[in-house]
Amino acid sequence: MLHTLPFDISSLHAAYAQGLDPAAVMEEAHRRIGAAGDPGIFLHVLEPAALQAQLAQLGAFDPDSKPLWGIPFAIKDNIDAAGEPTTAGCPAYAYEAGADAFVVGVLRAAGAILIGKTNLDQFATGLVGVRTPFPVPLNALDPAIVPGGSSSGSAVAVAHGIVSFSLGTDTAGSGRVPAALNGIVGLKPTLGALSATGVVPACRTLDTISIFALTVGDAYKVFAAAAVFDPADSYARPLVLAESPVAAPTFRVGVPDTASRRFFGDAVQAASFDATLESLRERGAEIVELDFGPLYAIAEMLYDGVWVAERYTVIEALLREQPEAVLPVTRAIIQRAEKFSAADAFRGFYRLQDLRREALAVADAVDLLCVPSIPTFCTVAELEADPVGPNSRLGTYTNFVNLLDMCAIAVPVRTRADGRPGSVTLIAGRGEDARIAAVAAVLQQDCAAPLGATGWPLPQAADVLPVANRDEIALAVVG
Amino acid sequence: MLHTLPFDISSLHAAYAQGLDPAAVMEEAHRRIGAAGDPGIFLHVLEPAALQAQLAQLGAFDPDSKPLWGIPFAIKDNIDAAGEPTTAGCPAYAYEAGADAFVVGVLRAAGAILIGKTNLDQFATGLVGVRTPFPVPLNALDPAIVPGGSSSGSAVAVAHGIVSFSLGTDTAGSGRVPAALNGIVGLKPTLGALSATGVVPACRTLDTISIFALTVGDAYKVFAAAAVFDPADSYARPLVLAESPVAAPTFRVGVPDTASRRFFGDAVQAASFDATLESLRERGAEIVELDFGPLYAIAEMLYDGVWVAERYTVIEALLREQPEAVLPVTRAIIQRAEKFSAADAFRGFYRLQDLRREALAVADAVDLLCVPSIPTFCTVAELEADPVGPNSRLGTYTNFVNLLDMCAIAVPVRTRADGRPGSVTLIAGRGEDARIAAVAAVLQQDCAAPLGATGWPLPQAADVLPVANRDEIALAVVG
Repeated sequence: MLHTLPFDISSLHAAYAQGLDPAAVMEEAHRRIGAAGDPGIFLHVLEPAALQAQLAQLGAFDPDSKPLWGIPFAIKDNIDAAGEPTTAGCPAYAYEAGADAFVVGVLRAAGAILIGKTNLDQFATGLVGVRTPFPVPLNALDPAIVPGGSSSGSAVAVAHGIVSFSLGTDTAGSGRVPAALNGIVGLKPTLGALSATGVVPACRTLDTISIFALTVGDAYKVFAAAAVFDPADSYARPLVLAESPVAAPTFRVGVPDTASRRFFGDAVQAASFDATLESLRERGAEIVELDFGPLYAIAEMLYDGVWVAERYTVIEALLREQPEAVLPVTRAIIQRAEKFSAADAFRGFYRLQDLRREALAVADAVDLLCVPSIPTFCTVAELEADPVGPNSRLGTYTNFVNLLDMCAIAVPVRTRADGRPGSVTLIAGRGEDARIAAVAAVLQQDCAAPLGATGWPLPQAADVLPVANRDEIALAVVG
Repeated sequence: MLHTLPFDISSLHAAYAQGLDPAAVMEEAHRRIGAAGDPGIFLHVLEPAALQAQLAQLGAFDPDSKPLWGIPFAIKDNIDAAGEPTTAGCPAYAYEAGADAFVVGVLRAAGAILIGKTNLDQFATGLVGVRTPFPVPLNALDPAIVPGGSSSGSAVAVAHGIVSFSLGTDTAGSGRVPAALNGIVGLKPTLGALSATGVVPACRTLDTISIFALTVGDAYKVFAAAAVFDPADSYARPLVLAESPVAAPTFRVGVPDTASRRFFGDAVQAASFDATLESLRERGAEIVELDFGPLYAIAEMLYDGVWVAERYTVIEALLREQPEAVLPVTRAIIQRAEKFSAADAFRGFYRLQDLRREALAVADAVDLLCVPSIPTFCTVAELEADPVGPNSRLGTYTNFVNLLDMCAIAVPVRTRADGRPGSVTLIAGRGEDARIAAVAAVLQQDCAAPLGATGWPLPQAADVLPVANRDEIALAVVG
């Protein structure tokens, strides 16, 4: 029954091994777009000819040489696909891409099939997903709450099971907040691991492509395929995975101490976080309470500080020539850059450097950090009343990560007592991507978290080992 | 005969081992200040009580536990010494330092004796050494040519043999250009290897303390003693020396190709450079001609680009409240920062990042680079006619180094045919300080270069080995 076939990679590959035609899977993906009944998810769906051209390149089913053979995916509309429009959520900015973004090309070469381009907070500026001139995508689990952004459409498409995975981008949390709000996985790689060639920048020094999937295993599989060094991207860095072992059977997980937990009155979220830490303890984690003050101080620098000038460099001409083409809320944020001088920029870097020392001293005391992915939820109605405050709150636990050159993964955990999705984010230093993915995979299994809005069962991950040491778990998840 | 005793470390330690009193050496240093007859070298000489306090800390002669026991040194007057004034070359900016700069404290603990603070281009802005409201220091070899800057007094003091070594600072070349102009060694460490605590910044992201000495061995000995990690300096980095070996008996030395050599018509300097490359060849170097275009493009960004805003952050209040307290030429340079926005700053970083990729691709093809330290000389009279142009030319081969996170050492070579000092600078990547020092030591020996203006013989360096591989030569020089 194709209509009910789960689109996680294992299920699809099992079906392909049995002879399923990938063209039928693409048709089913289109059917699911219609079934979702939400015109806000996709800004552009590829024409049949463009789909057919990709299928023609596949060759015989061969998941060894093409680990993503026949896997449908979508990309945020600030990422280029050859011959397709890129809007970055702003029609006045739109252009037809001459070539695939580097990562899109790599994924297609690995057998993945692009089916469309997804909605976003304009210019990837926002964490809510409603700052778009197009129809607003609806949260896949509860239309009353915001879908999260800026990678809204990409997250919702995965949560509905329309595609197996999708690409977002993440500067302040755009690849993690929408994952939490839609009950899926959001993998935010180490900066520079995924090429930025062919991506409309937000803050070029802090951006990365991110990956949404239903399971940690799928997200990591896509990441491993995509992490190819691109010499043409000046900010690309070869990914060197960390090797230092964690002593089995315990590992140290740093969490905000009582004084630095922020839930804005959401006691259900607080209880959900505590329950998740208990699950980690049962797997051998030693929970270490830390003062997150230095991390929050860094987080506040991102939107209040000089980095907004990076966004300004992207649309300076547009702001001057057609300011009305930019959404008022987005324009107000980005035009703040005009008040900052180059001297202010350097003062910001000095302050960041000082705060980094403090924050890394905190983080170095543990093997990884675990935080709530979001402090609380935000309804569409709340956001209409105040378009900025709730947006800022959503970034509480995400804003500091890229400024600290850390990697992160948002993972679904037990559904909260009120039925809303649970999510925590694991965070570690540059290059520790495999290690936090391994812990996240265990956590997803242990919590038997639902897979977005699909109702599909969590695949039994034969390749997830108990957390033992960094090398072993890295291998386990990569495999 | 104390009057003729060379002040290199080996000679002084040999004399101390024979019973020489360090107080007598300090008296002799004071006599040499008078004998030099140049009131522009020192801005401040320590009082007898301050000298006596240092001598009282020395204990018995013990060069093993105190490798700089009884060694007189001077520091540029933008570096703090407890209880002494710091002016940065600007009386209106002056303050009395509450504590030693971290590096000064480390050197004193290693037995070095501070005797005074030296003149500089105001706020370390300049490569000429004449941009000071105090008497201009005279070049130690030829008073018609500029002393070089910004660390003018520190270089001249060493070239006269008044002190064994001195500290400068180096952002654009301030630790190398004056070394070349006075016939001494200028060691510019990897950024972050020497603490910046207690140093008046020029460009905080690009500054380092530098070391002047008569011999490469002495400069490296001081560097090794000073390179202590300072956790209070946010830009400090533990020095990790590079380990990759160079295949004996050859090593690859990159030099500007014919099209990218710049001597501004100075054929004597061109011939001097060629002769030095021949000396390197005789030691097994393979000379590789490289297009230095990408490196020059980076060099141009330093003074023309947004980094001048870093200097602005240091004296913004002074410029606003007492602009006339800053020299007109210095003020004009630093006020250029006012035209740059934060967006301009980020555009500058993006361009630098792109150029870095190109430049490092050039540099990665070889084991080290060798350039003329200066393209040509500049007379005091020329600079009076044009205070900016000749200054810029002096930075031709130095400006790009800190922007590329490379280390460098300026080393005296054969005296030029016209009697002016010869000098080349060896450059390599971050952490390769020991390796370029080893090659520099060999070059200084082979060229039998004069030691500044002292007329002293070059000490036979028993510890300089032929260039064999990176590890061996590093050990040879450190020992």
